[in-house]
Amino acid sequence: MIHDDLPAMDNDDFRRGKPTNHVLYGDDVAILAGDAMLSTAFEYVAANTKGVAAERVVQVLRMLGESVGPMGLAGGQVMDLKCEGQPDVGIDTLQWIHTYKTAALLKAAVCCGAALAGASDEDLARCETYANKIGLAFQVADDILDVTASTEELGKTAGKDLDADKTTYPKLLGLDRSREVARELVDEAKAALEPYGERAAPLLGLADYIISRSN
Amino acid sequence: MIHDDLPAMDNDDFRRGKPTNHVLYGDDVAILAGDAMLSTAFEYVAANTKGVAAERVVQVLRMLGESVGPMGLAGGQVMDLKCEGQPDVGIDTLQWIHTYKTAALLKAAVCCGAALAGASDEDLARCETYANKIGLAFQVADDILDVTASTEELGKTAGKDLDADKTTYPKLLGLDRSREVARELVDEAKAALEPYGERAAPLLGLADYIISRSN
Repeated sequence: MIHDDLPAMDNDDFRRGKPTNHVLYGDDVAILAGDAMLSTAFEYVAANTKGVAAERVVQVLRMLGESVGPMGLAGGQVMDLKCEGQPDVGIDTLQWIHTYKTAALLKAAVCCGAALAGASDEDLARCETYANKIGLAFQVADDILDVTASTEELGKTAGKDLDADKTTYPKLLGLDRSREVARELVDEAKAALEPYGERAAPLLGLADYIISRSN
Repeated sequence: MIHDDLPAMDNDDFRRGKPTNHVLYGDDVAILAGDAMLSTAFEYVAANTKGVAAERVVQVLRMLGESVGPMGLAGGQVMDLKCEGQPDVGIDTLQWIHTYKTAALLKAAVCCGAALAGASDEDLARCETYANKIGLAFQVADDILDVTASTEELGKTAGKDLDADKTTYPKLLGLDRSREVARELVDEAKAALEPYGERAAPLLGLADYIISRSN
């Protein structure tokens, strides 16, 4: 987030209504703060999972690394940047971008937790489907909010996607169909967790929250 | 390195005689490339240590994370930035900066290898002393080279420390005493590995190389 807000990137001075890191401390410290936090995430997992089988911890650290790398957040962001201002970005490319830029981190959050708790490969596959779907839904909702919400509600600058000449779901499908797509994705996400019944209630609630949020 | 070369940081257009990442691909891609490589380092260790006990791999990932975080590379760099242009930076602060900015990563390189090979705690302590000493020696040598070498020899812009009004060993101690300090540090580093005799030859050679290099 700190890196994403930098002038060289999304150039956002506010995040959740507060000045961003580089605004307070400068671009150089913001770059280093992001690097430090990214590394500390891995250190933290390695240092605070004493009761878990080490094989599981290694699996989690592998998934976490993958979720931020070239086939994760960073790769998705690069593709997103490269597509800005391009007139011929279709729904497939947009979905690819969102899968890596957004869903990959959600996948890591869901699947790392599941793995630490002893999930089987089949469990992990279900969690992955759930996370991918809510990740896409999150991004569709984000695109919708960027068009419909005010800067005040959003806690960050609104209308940035239009300014940056970015392809978004509302632009490709219109607002109404985008809202439908978000709803369908959330329903598919919840369907993936059906076998767990009531035990999945927190994750089911989270899926609904993702498309009902206003900032 | 990619982040370190950014205009917001050291602002270097060349590294080892070649254009730096942001010169070729832009600041935004350079920030993301650095993030991707940092994450991939952890993923790579987790995914390519199959023959090693998982407890060892977790230990290595913890050390690796620590070496880049607040009490590692990033913390040392921040302190380095904060001390630029300050007239009262003494040898203790300079050593603190170098310990975290430079020696921490060398410590990770040496100690992670040792841990994967089954090093005892005592072995690791010796490796740590060795790495800290050559790390400091490396930085003293770097400061000396910045004053004495040409941009062509260095493969990066020379004289940058003077331009940035940075405290360096040559400035605090003079060139001759700085060369002595580098030599003493290398001797102390080698002494830490004495119990291993000839088996430590590659590390001993590396220690000598660090202060004899010309770029």
